[in-house]
Amino acid sequence: VYRKATIVGGGLSGALFAIYLARRGCEVDVYDARGDIRHEPPDPIRSVNLTIAARGLDGLRRVGLDQQAIDKLCTVLRYRVIHDSDGPVRRMSYGVQDHEVLYSVSRTHLTQFLLDVAAAEPGVRLHFHHRLVDLDKTTATATFFDGTGAIKVVRADVVVGADGAGSAVRRHMQSGLCADFSREYVPYRYKPLSIDAGNGDDAGLDPHGLHLWPRGDFMLFALPNQDYTLNGVCVLPAHGPNSFDSLRTPEAVESFFGEHFADAMPYMPRLVDEFLGRPASGFSTIRTSTWHYRDKVVLIGDACHGVIPFYGQGMNAAFEDCVVLDQCLAAHWRDWQKAFAEYERRRRVNTDTLAELSLANFTELRDSVRRPSLAARSKMSLAAYRALGDRAAPLYSLVSHSTTPYSECVRIARHRQRVARMLGADLAVACLVGAESVKRRLKPGRDRRS
Amino acid sequence: VYRKATIVGGGLSGALFAIYLARRGCEVDVYDARGDIRHEPPDPIRSVNLTIAARGLDGLRRVGLDQQAIDKLCTVLRYRVIHDSDGPVRRMSYGVQDHEVLYSVSRTHLTQFLLDVAAAEPGVRLHFHHRLVDLDKTTATATFFDGTGAIKVVRADVVVGADGAGSAVRRHMQSGLCADFSREYVPYRYKPLSIDAGNGDDAGLDPHGLHLWPRGDFMLFALPNQDYTLNGVCVLPAHGPNSFDSLRTPEAVESFFGEHFADAMPYMPRLVDEFLGRPASGFSTIRTSTWHYRDKVVLIGDACHGVIPFYGQGMNAAFEDCVVLDQCLAAHWRDWQKAFAEYERRRRVNTDTLAELSLANFTELRDSVRRPSLAARSKMSLAAYRALGDRAAPLYSLVSHSTTPYSECVRIARHRQRVARMLGADLAVACLVGAESVKRRLKPGRDRRS
Repeated sequence: VYRKATIVGGGLSGALFAIYLARRGCEVDVYDARGDIRHEPPDPIRSVNLTIAARGLDGLRRVGLDQQAIDKLCTVLRYRVIHDSDGPVRRMSYGVQDHEVLYSVSRTHLTQFLLDVAAAEPGVRLHFHHRLVDLDKTTATATFFDGTGAIKVVRADVVVGADGAGSAVRRHMQSGLCADFSREYVPYRYKPLSIDAGNGDDAGLDPHGLHLWPRGDFMLFALPNQDYTLNGVCVLPAHGPNSFDSLRTPEAVESFFGEHFADAMPYMPRLVDEFLGRPASGFSTIRTSTWHYRDKVVLIGDACHGVIPFYGQGMNAAFEDCVVLDQCLAAHWRDWQKAFAEYERRRRVNTDTLAELSLANFTELRDSVRRPSLAARSKMSLAAYRALGDRAAPLYSLVSHSTTPYSECVRIARHRQRVARMLGADLAVACLVGAESVKRRLKPGRDRRS
Repeated sequence: VYRKATIVGGGLSGALFAIYLARRGCEVDVYDARGDIRHEPPDPIRSVNLTIAARGLDGLRRVGLDQQAIDKLCTVLRYRVIHDSDGPVRRMSYGVQDHEVLYSVSRTHLTQFLLDVAAAEPGVRLHFHHRLVDLDKTTATATFFDGTGAIKVVRADVVVGADGAGSAVRRHMQSGLCADFSREYVPYRYKPLSIDAGNGDDAGLDPHGLHLWPRGDFMLFALPNQDYTLNGVCVLPAHGPNSFDSLRTPEAVESFFGEHFADAMPYMPRLVDEFLGRPASGFSTIRTSTWHYRDKVVLIGDACHGVIPFYGQGMNAAFEDCVVLDQCLAAHWRDWQKAFAEYERRRRVNTDTLAELSLANFTELRDSVRRPSLAARSKMSLAAYRALGDRAAPLYSLVSHSTTPYSECVRIARHRQRVARMLGADLAVACLVGAESVKRRLKPGRDRRS
């Protein structure tokens, strides 16, 4: 069966899924409301950096992105670098095995790369400056305004909504379907700020770490680029004295950063202009109960499950959508309604779990300054992991370095926590770690299981 | 200051608010996506009946709808008529004072009436078959598809979103505003069913009651028309054996109604066709945190606060929006941003309260069969009201027969409940009601207060 698909949204997930569909023999038209990011001047406000973890890599490798391409596009991240307001800089490793690293990548560069791959695919056509203004879900007919203000009506066999958190496809599709929907913001706002980390020769900011300045109710974090710059993000409360609304003069900004982010300031020569000149944005969680309409319309990525970015999993989850949806299509090639239903059944429980994990991790990131026990526990669990191997992989490692479904990760982590408590472990493990005694003590359990 | 307004949505609240704005000297263009309901064949599926209570009457009377017009359009409702599955039919009065009645009205007829009044107003123009496809909130510029498929771009000073639960104005306005939004459905579905109550001479269904057949997990209710017909609504669980999905044959429908709604069946000659032929719809609650954008865009009615219909207050709350927004405009005529902010501040807390009241009342309506104590308590509180006067008006009377803000109604009711408990009353009141002793017993409290 050969199908014609309309993909609304030519961002990361839209471009990736276009490649998947084309490789299954579909004719794919991708429509994006904006211009072609490959030929537009860079937009510093939209071009935040993202972290690619195991799920994202898996999704990319399936379309042929090899290690060489990854190294060309990305900066490897081996640890979190924590800049406390007092005391020395701390490092928290992202894993113990060689492959357990994250990759920092510019959203713009990765999107450009995927659009290039998609454009080279036979069967894929890219259309820019096309904004969806109508969708007849019963006939998969989409209506766009093109760049000239004219109307284009496109009928296909299926419409894929990859148009992000404010998805117009979602709104049209869910009309009349009794679909629960919510979009909730956390009471914080952010602005991107650029950081120049030196040239690699001096004692600048480590280019292989995700830098974090946790300050309780606000924070700064930064992801490195390949050219010794970093993309910083300043997160402040939505309201109150330390909010973007309150810090409105160069003096206020400099005094605030001088007090709280003194060691970052030397690397932020454009701080005041960027802080005062850029718009503040919010972080929201999107949950919705209905991801598809028959075999005609289906949603992927932020259009059906936006998460706040503090587990670094938003794009990874969107790419995993593409993988799972592709698998479901392969399994039910003659019945796309069944494929979409199976996809929704497999994914929704997991993205709902990711939403909770991301909210919880935000609290942890901000509070890691106030509660050093969190860092200690994290170190401890990594040490146990090193000593005990895969069966002690902590939740963070499962989420970031495996493709185990999110809800399964949580189930496994909870089970381990129970076992650890039963063995009187948890804190004890920290002392015993590395000692063969731990392995021996746990062995009988392992034997019984196998 | 004289302003040009675009109202999106020519339903009840859009038509009413057009009249308000016109009478304040504005030039008003109303755009509705559908055809002119005054000249279209009646749509039995969309034409449910509504109840007008004090808030709705207040909104209508301010534009000159007098008692004569009300009597011409509406059927007076004096009580709930409860058809239990066993036992005699019960009546529960809506109030004790003469004016404490509700009015049953066809949504279609009331909309037609308001459109006629609006059309006769100098400065109001009505446009049908115009669907909003774009909105630039910064310039109050709306783009519509007109009936011919052509594009019309309309710039005004302000855009009013009166386009209901699926509001396109809301979506465009909230884009980028960090607005929390949720739409949640209760796990029930409904279909409208018509009922022919006889000709008034026989022992048919009382034409001055809201008829209710509560059956625990499902129910039938009906609002009378002036011609001895009633608009019935059948509410079933969204899933399971007694759902619309399960009851799919004429035999199944007849057997289900025969078992549970036997006394209504004789009045439902088209039951099977309507039950099987009409689409099922859902009931949802809409909450959102952002009702306006500067002085450019503002939302009213379901666009910003949809409630499930089981307190009979949805339209009443929408009309109250019009009254309050009109008051705020009058108070801040030179600063509409201030007016909109004040309107949102005054209304949102109250419509959020109404959402909770409506959800709670749904449970009460369905359960009144299982828990006769609810009916007893209701009777009791009406009796206390009769005996004690206004200061004992129960919550239902405050909500339905006053224009006291919803959250204030709840505060008053809670306070009274506490006082009643302090006096050892609650149940005791039932015995004492009507006796002067109650009045005397409560007098010292009144004296202290005054």
